[in-house]
This record gives sequence, C-alpha cells and structure tokens, in this order.
Amino acid sequence: MSLGIIFLSETVGTAMLLLLGGGVVANVALVKSKGFNGGTLMVNFGWGLAVFAGVTVSYKSGAHLNPAVSIAQLILGKIDFVQFLVYIAAQMVGAFIGAVLVWLAYKNHFDEEPEPAAKLGVFSTGPAIRNYAWNLVTEIIGTFVLVFVIIAFTNGKTPSELGAIPVAFLVIAIGASLGGPTGYAINPARDLGPRIAHAVLPIKGKGGSDWSYAWVPVVGPLVGGALAALLSSALLPLA
Amino acid sequence: MSLGIIFLSETVGTAMLLLLGGGVVANVALVKSKGFNGGTLMVNFGWGLAVFAGVTVSYKSGAHLNPAVSIAQLILGKIDFVQFLVYIAAQMVGAFIGAVLVWLAYKNHFDEEPEPAAKLGVFSTGPAIRNYAWNLVTEIIGTFVLVFVIIAFTNGKTPSELGAIPVAFLVIAIGASLGGPTGYAINPARDLGPRIAHAVLPIKGKGGSDWSYAWVPVVGPLVGGALAALLSSALLPLA
Amino acid sequence: MSLGIIFLSETVGTAMLLLLGGGVVANVALVKSKGFNGGTLMVNFGWGLAVFAGVTVSYKSGAHLNPAVSIAQLILGKIDFVQFLVYIAAQMVGAFIGAVLVWLAYKNHFDEEPEPAAKLGVFSTGPAIRNYAWNLVTEIIGTFVLVFVIIAFTNGKTPSELGAIPVAFLVIAIGASLGGPTGYAINPARDLGPRIAHAVLPIKGKGGSDWSYAWVPVVGPLVGGALAALLSSALLPLA
Amino acid sequence: MSLGIIFLSETVGTAMLLLLGGGVVANVALVKSKGFNGGTLMVNFGWGLAVFAGVTVSYKSGAHLNPAVSIAQLILGKIDFVQFLVYIAAQMVGAFIGAVLVWLAYKNHFDEEPEPAAKLGVFSTGPAIRNYAWNLVTEIIGTFVLVFVIIAFTNGKTPSELGAIPVAFLVIAIGASLGGPTGYAINPARDLGPRIAHAVLPIKGKGGSDWSYAWVPVVGPLVGGALAALLSSALLPLA
Repeated sequence: MSLGIIFLSETVGTAMLLLLGGGVVANVALVKSKGFNGGTLMVNFGWGLAVFAGVTVSYKSGAHLNPAVSIAQLILGKIDFVQFLVYIAAQMVGAFIGAVLVWLAYKNHFDEEPEPAAKLGVFSTGPAIRNYAWNLVTEIIGTFVLVFVIIAFTNGKTPSELGAIPVAFLVIAIGASLGGPTGYAINPARDLGPRIAHAVLPIKGKGGSDWSYAWVPVVGPLVGGALAALLSSALLPLA
Repeated sequence: MSLGIIFLSETVGTAMLLLLGGGVVANVALVKSKGFNGGTLMVNFGWGLAVFAGVTVSYKSGAHLNPAVSIAQLILGKIDFVQFLVYIAAQMVGAFIGAVLVWLAYKNHFDEEPEPAAKLGVFSTGPAIRNYAWNLVTEIIGTFVLVFVIIAFTNGKTPSELGAIPVAFLVIAIGASLGGPTGYAINPARDLGPRIAHAVLPIKGKGGSDWSYAWVPVVGPLVGGALAALLSSALLPLA
Repeated sequence: MSLGIIFLSETVGTAMLLLLGGGVVANVALVKSKGFNGGTLMVNFGWGLAVFAGVTVSYKSGAHLNPAVSIAQLILGKIDFVQFLVYIAAQMVGAFIGAVLVWLAYKNHFDEEPEPAAKLGVFSTGPAIRNYAWNLVTEIIGTFVLVFVIIAFTNGKTPSELGAIPVAFLVIAIGASLGGPTGYAINPARDLGPRIAHAVLPIKGKGGSDWSYAWVPVVGPLVGGALAALLSSALLPLA
Repeated sequence: MSLGIIFLSETVGTAMLLLLGGGVVANVALVKSKGFNGGTLMVNFGWGLAVFAGVTVSYKSGAHLNPAVSIAQLILGKIDFVQFLVYIAAQMVGAFIGAVLVWLAYKNHFDEEPEPAAKLGVFSTGPAIRNYAWNLVTEIIGTFVLVFVIIAFTNGKTPSELGAIPVAFLVIAIGASLGGPTGYAINPARDLGPRIAHAVLPIKGKGGSDWSYAWVPVVGPLVGGALAALLSSALLPLA
C-alpha cells in the first residue's frame, strides 16, 4: 500500500472517529444541548459507533485509527517503521481535524457553556481520581483489551470493513467496563490531537489544556498495545 | 428501474421511516405516554431502527429515503435527473403519510398534551440555540457524515437490504454525536414533509409550524449530501 | 412439516419469548428488583431480545410465535387452516407457560410487591389512556409494521434462524416508537395467554385481570397482521 | 484438542469475561467512577459484550467460559470427563485473574469507596431478596435459558467465533429479563472465582465475602445447564 493512501485513509478515518466521538461528549456535556445529561451508556454507544464509522471509511489502510493498534502491527511485522510513522502522523492530523469539526458543529453550545472543564472534556480525557501511576495502569489494561481482541478477530490480520461492527461492540464494551477511572482514551491520537486543538482553537472562555496529564493517555495506550502484540502469540492460539 | 417502482418503494420506505422516527419522539415527548422522558439514547435508537425498517421495505429502489442521498446519487451519476425528481417527490409524500400515521397512533396523547412545542417536535426538528448560520453548519456536517459513510459502505453503489443494519448503526451514531444542536434532521423530506402535515392536520391545540426555520433542515442536508458526493472520490479510495 | 413439530416448536419458542419478555417488565416494575425503574429503553431491548431468543429456538416451525404472523402466513398461502390452528394453539400454550416461569423466577418480588397493577403489567398490556377505538388503531398500526417488515425481510418466506437479529431490531423499534399508547402487545398470544395465567395463578395480592380490555390486543394485532399480508403484494415489489 | 490448549484458551477467555463484566459493575457502583449510577441497561450491555470479547479470544476451545456450558457439553457427549475438569479448572483460574485485573483497573475507586457491599458486588452476585430456595429457582431458569439457546444456535456444536454476537445478545437478554432477583450469575466460575479473589485480595475496607450464599450461584447454574442439555433433544428438533 502506498504511503499516500495510508496517510489519506487514516486521516479521514480518524477525523470521522473524533468528530463522532467528541460529538457525543459535546451532546451530553454542553449546556442546552438536546442530549444534555444523556448518560454514560449513550457516551459508550457514541464512541463505539464512532469507531464503526471511522473503520468503515478507512478500511483501505486497515483502519488502525490508533497508534496503539499501529504499534502492535509494527511489532507483529505487519507494517514497517516508515509506514508506522505515516500511520501515526495521519492519526494525529485526523484527530485534530475531527476535534475542530466538533467545535464547529457545537459552536453555539461552546459559546454559551460557562464551565471550562466541560469544554476540555469534549476534546480530551481526564482522570476521575488523579493518580498518574494507577491512571496509567487503567489505560494499559483498557488498551490491552482493545488490541488483544482485535488481534483475535483477525488472527493477526488488520481489521477489514466487515469487522467494523465487532470493533464497535468491543469499544462499547471497553467504555462501559473500563472507562470509569480515566474516561478510556485507549488511543494516543484520540487524546493528544484534540488536546492540541483545544490549545490552539479560539474557544470562548476555555481554560487550560491540562498538559500535566497529557502523557498518561499517550504512554498507557502505547504500552497496552505493545503488550497485546507481544503476548498474543503466547495467549492466542493463532491459526 | 421503472419510475413507478421508484415512487412506490420510496413512498413506502419513507412513510415507514417517519412513522417509527416520529413515533419515538411522540413516545418520549407526549404526556402520559409510556416512554415519557425515556431519554436521548432511546430517541437515537428509535430513529436508527426506523431507518433500518424503512431501508428493509424499500430496498427495491435502493432505499434512499432522503433527498440528501438522492442528490449524492445524482452527482455520482447513479440516477438521472428525472429519477431524482421522482425520488424526491416520493420521499415527500411518504414522509407526510408517516407523520399522519404517528398522529393517529398517538391521537389520545396529542389531544391531552398541553404544550404546542411538544406536538411540533414530533413532526419536525428545531434548534436548541437558534442561530441559522451555525444551525446550517451543524446540519451540513451531520448529513455529510451520513452520505459519506453510506458511499463508503457501498463503494458508490446504493445501499441494499443487507446494508440496513449498518445504516441503522450510522444513524444512531449521528444522532448521539451530532444531534445536540439541531435535532439532526439530516434529511429534507424527514423535516419538511411532516412540517406540512403539522400545518394541515387538525391537531388539537397545535401552535405554529415554525416556517422561519424550515429552510435550514432542507438546505443544510442538500449541501451536506452534495459535498459528500463531490469529496468522496478524493477522500475515499474507491475500488 | 408435521403438526407435532409445529406445536412443539411454537410452544417452546413462545414460552421463551414470554419468559424473557415478561421478565424484563418484572425486572423494571416489581419492588426491590435490581432493574427497578430501569427505563423504557431497557424494556424495549428486553422484548426485542426475547424475540431473538424465541426465534432462535423455534426456527424449525418458522418461528411465528404470534397469531398475527400466522394469520398473515395463512392469507399468503404459506400455511393451511389446520396448521394455522395448531400454530395458534401452541402460541397460547407457550405464552401461558412463559408467564408461569416469570412468576416463578420473580416469586419473592411478586410476594413483596404491594401494587396489583404492577403485577398485572408483568403479564399483559394495558393502555396509557383508555379509549378502545384509538387503542385499537395503535395496535393495528404497530402490528402492521411488524408483519409488513417481516414479509419484506423474507419476501414472503417465513423468518429463518438467520433472521433472529433483524426481527429483534424490528421489535425494539416498534416498542420504542409505537409502544407509548398501549404497551405494544402486537401479538394476541403474548397478551391473552399471560392474562389467563394471571387469572388462574395463586399470585399473592393480585387484582383483577382487566378482561374488559383483553379484546383490544387480540383483535388489533389480527387486523394489523391481516392488513400487512393483504397489502404486501401491492406495496412491496416482491421478487 | 489438547488439554493445554483448552486450559490456556478458557483461562484467557474467562479472564476477559470477568475483567469486562466485573468492570462494568465497578463503573456503575464505585464512588467517583465516571459511569456511577449508569443504570441497569448499561450493566446488561457490559456483561453481554464481556461475553462477546471473551468468546472472541477463546474460540479455539469452543469458548465455554462457564461450567454450566461445559456440563451441558459433557452430557451431550461433546467432551469427556477429563476435558470437563480441565475446562472447569481453567474457568476458575481465569475468573480469578479477571477479578484481580478489575481491582487493579479500579484501584483508586476501591480505595475511596466507603461501602463494603459495593466492593463485594463488583466481584460476586447477591440476591435482592434473600431466599435460598427461590434464588436457586431463578438461577436455574436463567442458566437454562442461556444453555438451551446456545444449544439451539449451534445444533449441539459448541459456539464458534461467528457466534460471539448472538451469544452477547442472549446474555444481554437474560440480564435484562431474569437478572432482577439474583443479579444473574448463571455461571459458577463467574461467581465463585471472583468471590475467592475478594476473600484473598488486600482490598481496603472490604467486608465479608458472603460465603453463606456462595453455593446458590454454583448449584443453580449447574442444574440449569444440565437440564438444558437433558431437555434439548426433546424440545429442540435438532437437525
């Protein structure tokens, strides 16, 4: 696959993922939105189906949409290091674009929202109880589940368009089950790209971008994804 | 495909879509209904599965059910202009019929509901924060996602019966994620057909039909659908 | 297919349907139950997935599980009148058995529940606003949707095991969208069989079985199912 | 299949099941968690999709993940007694490991949670109304449904990876419909393994492990699973 196709496909897919994923948080969190206080299950479905849509439009490149998936594919020898860098770059660009589109779609609600923390929450995750070591553990476990089950789906092949529904169900599961402590970033691009967008966009009445936490949802998912790849041959009897 | 088959099939499918889609809003919004205050996620599922049912009964004509889909098919060269007009006409007629059926199914509840705005909300969308320019942006983005992902599903072919479940999931996603500001019309017929029904039906204690907003959920979705078609060849590596 | 297989299969499937369908109402409605006040969407999913389980165990007989489906199959010439009678009898017996099993599974909660209406609601439907004519209209419309879409799924063939998921989604849709006024019986056996069980079981502190309403969820669904069959050839371009 | 593959596969799958299943209870039950009070339907989805993930990673061994399924397979002659013992042992070990991982993922929330009963509830089930005989009846009925429908899915074959979504839907159904009285253990390993983990882990401020109830979710599911196997040939017209 050409590097250009990878870049384009992963950018489009990750932008779709963040537009719908960030969107559901905006819908439940921002003042006057019709989905205000819509509940955790709605957020879980929103992110799961955001992955569904993102995977659907990005299947040409295997729909990684997540550096934690790409690092696993690198370790499994499915992609090389140059491809890995292109995947990561595209995912960051796409996540940034998706976050900007959420801001545009919810512009009136960002403008009227009085609470800076609610605005940041549309872009990036934050811990319920701040404790970097344990927050890291939670992100490692959540991402391990994500990447390990994806490897099981595909016996080491990257997910195809046909896999969009199972991957969506998996992400709903992880959100419902492991999202409580840290809001399940489980994807460095999903968290860092929008955090950068939050920092640079002229959002009315925004607060800080909580950079002190920013490393946790980057390092945790990369460790979790790598562990899943390293343990998959031992724990999954691949065909 | 004959124009008669297109007209019949799209009328039946769009009536089914509006009967179930309008129905879920009636269930959560009208006084004494068993689903009263059932929550946003229930509305999202109701509309998503309404699309599922509508697509199922309308697969013979490709189940557009939405002028925004039809305009994209016109731009992509899948249908000609006369067919396009028949699709649109059938969708408007079907949406009107579906809205009438919702009124009949919930007749007692319409009669006892004291709030005119709740009645109109069963028929047509309205903005959470009225700002025509930004409301238009939200409808364009939401419809772009709808049509763009549908094109990705089908690589430019129209959706088939087999695609009813994925399209339903997509509509649940858009509702959960992008429905907050405007209630996600994302379909001119879905909004305008029932608005006409609201205007002409002898609904007890109804108020105005909010015609000043009516152009937004017509223009926004047509622009979003057209953009999705125009950008699909650049952004989606079609087979 | 032998009449014995039909009888056994429909009895087992309808018992499964009522066990899980009645069960979800018990879970949200009976005092001290863990799902108490679990919400309308939970009830909709419970009934939809009850159909899923019932269809799965009853696929040998086409999984009608509903006299409204059977009358449509009779009109469409897929079954003969003797078979129709066996289907109906089995569905009534199965629905009765399923309702008894719900009572056993929730025995402690029936015993502690102070409200007779909550107990009856686990067995049979009742209208939100009592108006027999309009209640009948709602049941006709809801059942029309059920049977019409099932016919569309199968192009006139009875549903197979493979169709269990689509039928479940359809029932979730009807519940969310058309369940508000009458609680969507959309199935004479689902309502009458358990109503008989309510009448004869020694349920602690039970009230009356509301026989004055009992004809509505029998007649409405039979009319709706028959209409769906009669209109299907005109409205659905069958292959 | 080698006993080693069975052991490894069932251990991994049951650990995945308990990590996600216990996790969703932690998310809705533990103080300060983002999903706190997320509702019963969220718990039902969490457990159903936990089964989905567990079955996906465990398909090599048929993904029993549950001694009630294994005893049915033993009765049906699909596995022998030595294999049965290996299945059970692996399920117990996996359930223990999964429960430990939940504790680690939610460590901060366990530490801050003041209520011992909330902590135990993340590990093991307990009855809403304590009455051992009727609690046993509920667990027998729930597990009968689980195993009986699984046998129907597979006509006596063990579930395959393709069956992960139907099994997930079935578990959502059982939770929504039959989970009210006892919290639907429907699996001896799911309840006993984590109860042992609760007893031995150094959980801050934990109370007792409610050993007096522990036999109910072991005996009930084994009886229910055995009954399903014994009745399946009579009640299901297997091909």
